[in-house]
Amino acid sequence: MSAPSSTNAWNKLTEQNIIIQFIDVTLRGCGQVMFQNNPITGLLFFIAIFLGAYWGNLPQAGFACLLGTAIATLTAYFYDLDKVSLRAGLYGYNGCLVGIGLATFLNPSFYLWIVVIFGAIISVIATKSLADFLKSWGVAALTAPFVLVTWTILLASYTFFGIKGISLPHPVTPDQFTITSSQALPYLNILIPDIFRGISEVFLLSSMTVGIIFVIGLAFNSIAAALYAILGSFVSVLASYFLQADASSINVGLYSFSAVLTGIALGSTFNTPSLRVTIYTIIGIIFTVFVQGALDTALAPIGIPSLTMPFVLATWLFLVSNKSFMSKDNQ
Amino acid sequence: MSAPSSTNAWNKLTEQNIIIQFIDVTLRGCGQVMFQNNPITGLLFFIAIFLGAYWGNLPQAGFACLLGTAIATLTAYFYDLDKVSLRAGLYGYNGCLVGIGLATFLNPSFYLWIVVIFGAIISVIATKSLADFLKSWGVAALTAPFVLVTWTILLASYTFFGIKGISLPHPVTPDQFTITSSQALPYLNILIPDIFRGISEVFLLSSMTVGIIFVIGLAFNSIAAALYAILGSFVSVLASYFLQADASSINVGLYSFSAVLTGIALGSTFNTPSLRVTIYTIIGIIFTVFVQGALDTALAPIGIPSLTMPFVLATWLFLVSNKSFMSKDNQ
Amino acid sequence: MSAPSSTNAWNKLTEQNIIIQFIDVTLRGCGQVMFQNNPITGLLFFIAIFLGAYWGNLPQAGFACLLGTAIATLTAYFYDLDKVSLRAGLYGYNGCLVGIGLATFLNPSFYLWIVVIFGAIISVIATKSLADFLKSWGVAALTAPFVLVTWTILLASYTFFGIKGISLPHPVTPDQFTITSSQALPYLNILIPDIFRGISEVFLLSSMTVGIIFVIGLAFNSIAAALYAILGSFVSVLASYFLQADASSINVGLYSFSAVLTGIALGSTFNTPSLRVTIYTIIGIIFTVFVQGALDTALAPIGIPSLTMPFVLATWLFLVSNKSFMSKDNQ
Repeated sequence: MSAPSSTNAWNKLTEQNIIIQFIDVTLRGCGQVMFQNNPITGLLFFIAIFLGAYWGNLPQAGFACLLGTAIATLTAYFYDLDKVSLRAGLYGYNGCLVGIGLATFLNPSFYLWIVVIFGAIISVIATKSLADFLKSWGVAALTAPFVLVTWTILLASYTFFGIKGISLPHPVTPDQFTITSSQALPYLNILIPDIFRGISEVFLLSSMTVGIIFVIGLAFNSIAAALYAILGSFVSVLASYFLQADASSINVGLYSFSAVLTGIALGSTFNTPSLRVTIYTIIGIIFTVFVQGALDTALAPIGIPSLTMPFVLATWLFLVSNKSFMSKDNQ
Repeated sequence: MSAPSSTNAWNKLTEQNIIIQFIDVTLRGCGQVMFQNNPITGLLFFIAIFLGAYWGNLPQAGFACLLGTAIATLTAYFYDLDKVSLRAGLYGYNGCLVGIGLATFLNPSFYLWIVVIFGAIISVIATKSLADFLKSWGVAALTAPFVLVTWTILLASYTFFGIKGISLPHPVTPDQFTITSSQALPYLNILIPDIFRGISEVFLLSSMTVGIIFVIGLAFNSIAAALYAILGSFVSVLASYFLQADASSINVGLYSFSAVLTGIALGSTFNTPSLRVTIYTIIGIIFTVFVQGALDTALAPIGIPSLTMPFVLATWLFLVSNKSFMSKDNQ
Repeated sequence: MSAPSSTNAWNKLTEQNIIIQFIDVTLRGCGQVMFQNNPITGLLFFIAIFLGAYWGNLPQAGFACLLGTAIATLTAYFYDLDKVSLRAGLYGYNGCLVGIGLATFLNPSFYLWIVVIFGAIISVIATKSLADFLKSWGVAALTAPFVLVTWTILLASYTFFGIKGISLPHPVTPDQFTITSSQALPYLNILIPDIFRGISEVFLLSSMTVGIIFVIGLAFNSIAAALYAILGSFVSVLASYFLQADASSINVGLYSFSAVLTGIALGSTFNTPSLRVTIYTIIGIIFTVFVQGALDTALAPIGIPSLTMPFVLATWLFLVSNKSFMSKDNQ
């Protein structure tokens, strides 16, 4: 499929005007959170993020997300990192998540903006380092830089009283976990909102509408990515109901956001869709749900959220030997 | 030494009959838990496991162990993984331990059998991935896939109320550790049962008879392996008495099972026995005891057991630079 | 600059007399804690350590430090490890820190000396293994062997009642952190002692005089190292006041010792000083402060100190991609 002429005109503009190029790269950075190298997808994502942040009474999250993406992109320009990755938004997506992640859990004081800017800068160094570290296994850094930088700052907020956590999980030992509500395997009227809220939680938001816009943004660039995102959310919701996780956490989407990313990554980004790939992806999605439960437990005593680390760990595990499990045709 | 004719006849059968071959590979998978590529050794191990599980009032542990090995072996066949490793049982031993590990700590409900099957499948993916990851250092995955998969499921059991832990350690901070019984360096009548129970704990069982059958199984394939297993248990029991660990834990074998594996691995599997190798192995065994104590402490607040991770960490540390510490003749 | 004749005479002596050589290598081992391959620097460091240990009512720390360095050096000779690294003291510095680290936190019983000797031996195996592990990324082991060995023994001290912790942090969940004293950004009369105490804490001591002797020792071998050490302490003190860390912890130097090492490493050891390098180093120093706060939180429930791990983690992150961020001239 050749690019439409409007796309060509835009691409030309990005070559001629550095400001337009910077905007283009920033938008792509947002799209790359779900592996999409497309400025329109990124624009739709940003619109959904600002809406979701506003609806969730957390308007600062939208601005922090935009700021994080922009600062990370600027840092990559400043250090003149490799052009292909830079122009594809690959130095921006971790800063994007650092921004929204910190704004979700920290008090919106002056310090929030300082750590968003600093965290976005560090996310670029972490992205480059992790990419170099992982190169010999042919595996991508995924969202690990976001998780490591955000964990560092959230953990540090317990000792730096200038930065204040507002909605960090209270530190407990895991024997104190209780089930607040349970539910049999749910009907469609519950399942469908759950699925889209699970997708919206990739950006730490919980809204069916926001999830739907994300899916539209994905579909604009890749139908397969949109379908595997829905598959990831669907399978993870079913699995967590089956395993009797806390139903209110499932409803919010907390067992799905990592699984959504695993679905897109294994199903459409690093493999070509097929039956064999889909089976492998479903196993990966279910494993992501287990890692989510495990990491929620392991982090409980130190009072930080798992973020997208379950996706990162499960997908790394499934990608290192991807070649051996997928036939050559599917890669 | 040429193989006896009965062995040759059996090997021929495994080539001709896929069912026989599958049984052969499953038995070898069990033997590989202690590094032995031999179906008779595996058969003796399985007999000891079923006996120990029955005596320990945990009969499901034997069946889960067999199921885990079989499922892992089937998964390797399904994905057509490399024949040499497959036929040697190297894709089966982690599933073997996943089965007995989960059955030891989880309630024997319908969910137990689901997670044993799922865990065994994941153990194969983890085995292949870790092997690929570690290839450039010439180091084996050891039992790390078992530990990682089992930790994930045990941790997740705190948030998934379908899966219930029954004998997981209660989450505590380490200042709450107490010594329940102490004892001076013990006489032979205490030491000898301790040593064999320590060997039986490799499969999470605690029985002198079971330990003796394991040693016979080892000796059937490798006298050196049997001797280094005993050395590992002997040194670790002495070291933990000397350091004043809780005596009842020593009696059960909890400071020895990782040390037993370190002994076999450093002494007979990855080196050829010699004085120099034996000194290095003894240092490695003592270090394994320290790592056991350390990991027991580090995992205390999240309520999971160390499993064989002390063996894995200590042996990796001692194997990466094995070449520099052993003279060329001994490898 | 050609070496003065006294240096030449000394170097000749080390070639002729194995005892003199052993002393030379042991002194260099101490100097290598701050990356200085110089026996006089090492001698000045040892003098400062004995003084600081005596003033801090912990005289055993000086002897343990010397013993750890000597045993590690002997182990490297025993295993005949590569001569260039051995003679530069690179197998000694982790043993040096293991000695002073264990003596700082453990009861000075007979067991202390056993674990100092054993820990020093293991530190050599860990140094070689980590160096081999990290080789393909062109990154050094730094003080990771010290941290891993010391963490192992300190954690194990909770389960081995022969080894007793005396000043280990009490295990708590991080919501129990309180600020014991706060302070606005301080004047020079507070700042200057803070800076030098921060440098003295590299060897777990807290004394302005000791810090000054360390700086003199650094300057004797490298003016740049001395300046970047001061920069590291200065920036980390300012950053931790700004972020409102507990002021009494800042005064003792607890937010600075890792940052000092990051400063020396990024500014003068692995790069040639320049403006670009200095900016990168300052970002690295500030990030080290965040990692310090994060690790202090993460380790709180298991009751062990962060040691120099914040330096190790931050510096690894900044060094893996050092090439991409520094222009070729500065490396």
